Amino acid sequence: MAVTAQVPDARTAFPPPSVEARPVDRGAWIAAFRHVRDETERRAAPLSPEDQQVQSMPDASPTKWHRAHTTWFFEQFLLKQHVPGYRVFDERFFYLFNSYYVQAGPRAPRISRGLVTRPTCDEVAAYRTHVDAAVADLIAGASEARIAEIVAIVEIGLHHEQQHQELMLTDILHAFAQNPLLPAYDAGWRWPALSQRSGRVTLEGGVAQMGHAGSGFRFDNEEPRHDVLLRPVDLDRALVTNGEWLEFMQDGGYAKPELWLSDGFVAAQTEGWEAPGYWRQRDGVWSSMTLAGVKPVDPALPVTHVSYYEADAFARWAGRDLPTEAEWETASDALDAAFGHVWQWTRSAYSAYPGYRPLPGALGEYNGKFMVSQFVLRGASVATPQGHSRPTYRNFFYPHQRWQFTGLRLSDYGV
Amino acid sequence: MAVTAQVPDARTAFPPPSVEARPVDRGAWIAAFRHVRDETERRAAPLSPEDQQVQSMPDASPTKWHRAHTTWFFEQFLLKQHVPGYRVFDERFFYLFNSYYVQAGPRAPRISRGLVTRPTCDEVAAYRTHVDAAVADLIAGASEARIAEIVAIVEIGLHHEQQHQELMLTDILHAFAQNPLLPAYDAGWRWPALSQRSGRVTLEGGVAQMGHAGSGFRFDNEEPRHDVLLRPVDLDRALVTNGEWLEFMQDGGYAKPELWLSDGFVAAQTEGWEAPGYWRQRDGVWSSMTLAGVKPVDPALPVTHVSYYEADAFARWAGRDLPTEAEWETASDALDAAFGHVWQWTRSAYSAYPGYRPLPGALGEYNGKFMVSQFVLRGASVATPQGHSRPTYRNFFYPHQRWQFTGLRLSDYGV
Amino acid sequence: MAVTAQVPDARTAFPPPSVEARPVDRGAWIAAFRHVRDETERRAAPLSPEDQQVQSMPDASPTKWHRAHTTWFFEQFLLKQHVPGYRVFDERFFYLFNSYYVQAGPRAPRISRGLVTRPTCDEVAAYRTHVDAAVADLIAGASEARIAEIVAIVEIGLHHEQQHQELMLTDILHAFAQNPLLPAYDAGWRWPALSQRSGRVTLEGGVAQMGHAGSGFRFDNEEPRHDVLLRPVDLDRALVTNGEWLEFMQDGGYAKPELWLSDGFVAAQTEGWEAPGYWRQRDGVWSSMTLAGVKPVDPALPVTHVSYYEADAFARWAGRDLPTEAEWETASDALDAAFGHVWQWTRSAYSAYPGYRPLPGALGEYNGKFMVSQFVLRGASVATPQGHSRPTYRNFFYPHQRWQFTGLRLSDYGV
Amino acid sequence: MAVTAQVPDARTAFPPPSVEARPVDRGAWIAAFRHVRDETERRAAPLSPEDQQVQSMPDASPTKWHRAHTTWFFEQFLLKQHVPGYRVFDERFFYLFNSYYVQAGPRAPRISRGLVTRPTCDEVAAYRTHVDAAVADLIAGASEARIAEIVAIVEIGLHHEQQHQELMLTDILHAFAQNPLLPAYDAGWRWPALSQRSGRVTLEGGVAQMGHAGSGFRFDNEEPRHDVLLRPVDLDRALVTNGEWLEFMQDGGYAKPELWLSDGFVAAQTEGWEAPGYWRQRDGVWSSMTLAGVKPVDPALPVTHVSYYEADAFARWAGRDLPTEAEWETASDALDAAFGHVWQWTRSAYSAYPGYRPLPGALGEYNGKFMVSQFVLRGASVATPQGHSRPTYRNFFYPHQRWQFTGLRLSDYGV
Repeated sequence: MAVTAQVPDARTAFPPPSVEARPVDRGAWIAAFRHVRDETERRAAPLSPEDQQVQSMPDASPTKWHRAHTTWFFEQFLLKQHVPGYRVFDERFFYLFNSYYVQAGPRAPRISRGLVTRPTCDEVAAYRTHVDAAVADLIAGASEARIAEIVAIVEIGLHHEQQHQELMLTDILHAFAQNPLLPAYDAGWRWPALSQRSGRVTLEGGVAQMGHAGSGFRFDNEEPRHDVLLRPVDLDRALVTNGEWLEFMQDGGYAKPELWLSDGFVAAQTEGWEAPGYWRQRDGVWSSMTLAGVKPVDPALPVTHVSYYEADAFARWAGRDLPTEAEWETASDALDAAFGHVWQWTRSAYSAYPGYRPLPGALGEYNGKFMVSQFVLRGASVATPQGHSRPTYRNFFYPHQRWQFTGLRLSDYGV
Repeated sequence: MAVTAQVPDARTAFPPPSVEARPVDRGAWIAAFRHVRDETERRAAPLSPEDQQVQSMPDASPTKWHRAHTTWFFEQFLLKQHVPGYRVFDERFFYLFNSYYVQAGPRAPRISRGLVTRPTCDEVAAYRTHVDAAVADLIAGASEARIAEIVAIVEIGLHHEQQHQELMLTDILHAFAQNPLLPAYDAGWRWPALSQRSGRVTLEGGVAQMGHAGSGFRFDNEEPRHDVLLRPVDLDRALVTNGEWLEFMQDGGYAKPELWLSDGFVAAQTEGWEAPGYWRQRDGVWSSMTLAGVKPVDPALPVTHVSYYEADAFARWAGRDLPTEAEWETASDALDAAFGHVWQWTRSAYSAYPGYRPLPGALGEYNGKFMVSQFVLRGASVATPQGHSRPTYRNFFYPHQRWQFTGLRLSDYGV
Repeated sequence: MAVTAQVPDARTAFPPPSVEARPVDRGAWIAAFRHVRDETERRAAPLSPEDQQVQSMPDASPTKWHRAHTTWFFEQFLLKQHVPGYRVFDERFFYLFNSYYVQAGPRAPRISRGLVTRPTCDEVAAYRTHVDAAVADLIAGASEARIAEIVAIVEIGLHHEQQHQELMLTDILHAFAQNPLLPAYDAGWRWPALSQRSGRVTLEGGVAQMGHAGSGFRFDNEEPRHDVLLRPVDLDRALVTNGEWLEFMQDGGYAKPELWLSDGFVAAQTEGWEAPGYWRQRDGVWSSMTLAGVKPVDPALPVTHVSYYEADAFARWAGRDLPTEAEWETASDALDAAFGHVWQWTRSAYSAYPGYRPLPGALGEYNGKFMVSQFVLRGASVATPQGHSRPTYRNFFYPHQRWQFTGLRLSDYGV
Repeated sequence: MAVTAQVPDARTAFPPPSVEARPVDRGAWIAAFRHVRDETERRAAPLSPEDQQVQSMPDASPTKWHRAHTTWFFEQFLLKQHVPGYRVFDERFFYLFNSYYVQAGPRAPRISRGLVTRPTCDEVAAYRTHVDAAVADLIAGASEARIAEIVAIVEIGLHHEQQHQELMLTDILHAFAQNPLLPAYDAGWRWPALSQRSGRVTLEGGVAQMGHAGSGFRFDNEEPRHDVLLRPVDLDRALVTNGEWLEFMQDGGYAKPELWLSDGFVAAQTEGWEAPGYWRQRDGVWSSMTLAGVKPVDPALPVTHVSYYEADAFARWAGRDLPTEAEWETASDALDAAFGHVWQWTRSAYSAYPGYRPLPGALGEYNGKFMVSQFVLRGASVATPQGHSRPTYRNFFYPHQRWQFTGLRLSDYGV
């Protein structure tokens, strides 16, 4: 089979070709598949079997589980449907590594993921190898009649896996932060270079359009593209920095209830928040747990690991606002550091766009059923894999969560 | 003092005159004040001291506490500021009966309201009498220079008290539902007559305006009036009924995860929801705990005591939508049973209108700090006091709560 | 009926005659019954209906519940069995006011006792009157063949009621201590005069006997009388005082883990114990919430509201021991303040005496089923009603509990 | 150094010589040390790094932690004190692997042991090697003046490690039972052959002696030997079997509150107990999770994984008793299967023997501080290592715990 000869440069392998391009470029699809699958393994590589086992809180999952679950996705939604006589690697994995797809069958309780010591990491690696080969064979060998449907499923599987790649980093960072030894995931890890201008981007008011249009992958929650009514607004070009956050702290921001949403102040008090997540103070100096271990807080870097509650309080303290997701999306071309540093909280509750319809079947559980009590974040973070960012992308978390790389950008409705 | 001679007919006493009317009609304001204060006592009258003591869950408060807290409001925000030499009834009540006004000073923990057996109901009655007299004297005797400011505070205090009047009924219903004897608050209580048409109200799409304008009382969260962009939509004239809800139940609605938001299904499973709140089944027949005690479920009445999660699942089951609050407000003139039966869940997360600014000082804690994780309800319920309803009114509760008189009305974006 | 003419002097009415005395002195039994029943009402008298409603923690019960439950006991175990055609006051009370007698039928959850606002205090008073009359009639009119069996049940019902009389005081003290107003149960309440000698009582080692023997009422857990082997031991004549406890506190006793049982230190840390229950410090001076309201801590009085964990830590700090219950009982004649001040923790885990057999039927649930994880206390407290104390009496609580009037007396095994 | 030449046959290496034997047989002590240390590694050998990481409940600990903590014990109590210039393996381990020795310094919270993924298993192995060499060197090279003190510490460290060897098996069994795959620790693992006679051992009443005396290792809680007064009692020669337990279950034993201690019935209801721990029923047939995976329940084997609450209820159902620890110890010579199958619950609450004094310093925290709310078990289980059993040994657990190999033997006080 000529497939292996077609492996392209990994730097250009993702995103894959449009699922609508004809004829389907099977080699490019196999390359994209390998590229993403390899990236998962690359992110797991610095971690020992013990590291990959741990689930440090209910919101997080073990590295090993991420590796297995993303593999299950291809078995469940692709191979079982499209490979006649497909030999399942292990029937029991359908129960162990299903996550929240209720319609895809029963699943192990989320909270006990850290208890599943078997299969081991080595067995999960074998599971990945088994599925990888089957997927590559399927892409290479599928009939012309079915290849289009197949690459559409491959595509969503790859974007799904990229989401878990981000979680692999945030989850292991949380786990390592619980370890008194505060180990580094990668001692050489660094924040990317940051170039931010001061000043603001001004949006005229009026009817604009938001949501995904045209070609290219998008999740169902980015559609349909629709009209929105904008107020005139200014958005900061720059992200809020650690230095600015320290001013908020020094002004007693965490202790002033008038700055906070009521639920937010309760959370801050209950959890003992006095600084962003992972910050610690010794001898009056603030440092922070990072993927490179504990490092001094750099005032010039964007603040991260702040919850929506904190972002909202900061904005109120500053006499500013958080932008809506429509404002962010409309202005995105003109923002600095929109992608690749920190996700940016918006003031928009996560909800369906008008006319939204989820995908049919179990894949329809992907986005829509989470549309309550969460807030939209826009942009992308340092942990977001290559090719997984776009202006219409909608990330979402609960307002108390802060183990993701979450920061903020301010806005202003002017006079 | 001629004040007592001016008492108007209670049926017309509320709402009071506009706070902007000049000269200030002091007699009408005193009448309005008495009208609302009397209504509180009228609602408490069927309840024994024991009944008035109980706090049956953290979300609810004792009747006695409602009576005292609404009185504290006038002492804290009106009498202390505007009556020179005002003799406070009991200094300790400032701590006991403050609720969430952080800026108004320390306050007793919400959860322990049911433990405060002293002051007794009789002492709270004396407290009310003391404050009532002082407020009436103040309105009657204030200088012309200050009377406008004074009636503005009286007005917000009365609307605040009316909100607690509604809670008095919902809270005691919850308490009585915990008692194995299932006592009736008022054996003669009845749902108001209901007249509902089938059919739908059609809204054209385009830019509309929502929010309060003109004269008359409004809470800060109803402002500013602003443009919104509407999609074409149909709203049902009628509320969803118990009979329709029984169809949902018979179709297994409570057990089908694909109909539910993820958090909602967890709540339904955890709480064991199989029917609306207070429903119970015996020998295959459904009845419901009401203010009149346990009564058979009437299929023709609007369903109530359903959470947002349930309303959302019902809408999905029906292949319909919940309206947004903008849609509800725009269509409100044409809806049947919009007010006086059940609050109607909208699909709108509770948030600030563009340009919203809370009131200054402690009164600014009234609305804005709750703008997270809650959903807007529109209309008014059977428990809402007279004069407290308007098309721009925004009620809000968490999506899991169902001890209020909460129901729903469906909508449709059409083809 | 001549019964009312026979009411004896209340001061001598309790304990009643031996149940074995023949002929049965019906008048004396009626007097004893009235004496105890009246004492319950006397203890409730200072309390408003609101006070009587509150359950301030799961371990405590409302005053109203105590009044009703002790009445239920006579209905359940006496009147239903022995009065032909007895008219039950309210069938529903059998469910509401059963406590832990599993075999006596279903019962309301303990935790929700504070939610039962109906029946009201007045209705409970009527319930008591109804049952009181029926019991008095039964005693007066029962056949000679059955009167012996009847007074035996009356006797256990009265001792049961006396136990609840003690709880009425400790439970309302706990409730009032939660109220920021710190109300007094009885402003004139005082600790009884205390006369304590220094020095010790010495017990020779060897075989002794413990447990109840002879006539007079005893609970089943006081039997059978049996041999025990004693080590030579000295017991302090005096109870540990507040002054001695302050020394322990000043020496950092609450913060030294080496003085504590492991579970005890966890409890102290978790609960934030730094002093006995109800103590509070202001401007360096310790006071304590008492039945008379907040009073200065008197160094000469016995310390009370200390848990077993604290008593054990104090003994270790003092280089002393807590006595066993066998030691306490053997030495009881020679101890000062053995009864009427505070219950005294022993080092004996609560367990069955060899050969113990519980009473048959539901009354057998009285004592035996609690014989795990609790410790025996000996003596009696200021809250114990007259006639309810004896050297063989075994009280028992969990080692973390401290809302009872619990103190300690030290002992020493000598060289 | 000749030490390595002296390694004796591992089968005879434990227990080591008496610490009082002179001259100290250094070779035998080194052999004993190696024997016990090797046994730990032998028990860990079937487990992957992932398996060794998991902490499946707060009561359990990861295998890796057991391996490290037992090593820490020698560093903390032996090497730091007795090896001049001892090079600590890693200072941070003193925090990570201290357990409950409060006086030995701060320690990581028990609940987070499963989060400590670093050090890895390999690093723990290196830690063990480092300490093993240092201990062997110390024993071989210590001065004659100090060797006696040193071997006394070695001895307690070895017995301490043996206790953890038992926990390694019970903890991993619990972890594997949480895994839906139900993996086997060792597919070849079997219960030891059991030979039990029917009939009873009769003890005469009177004064007997219990507690450790003479030479040989004992924990402080086994002393002092002292007089106890025995009642005449019969003890069954045999342990209660699975077959007998099935009769209890078939008779509805788990659902009859009159058989249970009150706390026990609450635990049974709350936890959903309907059979011993790890039992599961499919198609009417009971099987049980064991170290060899899921196996059918063998009616002839001793029942295990039952709590004290269950043992107590079973005894009451059978009309029998559980023996006291004094009775068990006195009769131990005549009991079948006293050691090596299951620990046997006694009815004795765990408490200090009269005259008990804990060891000085941090080692004094070993036993005494747990003397509350637990019950004594006697004998030894299939998981107890060789040389760790004796008639005076006192094991203890809370009455609700059942993840140990805990069973029971009945007794009777006769007529």
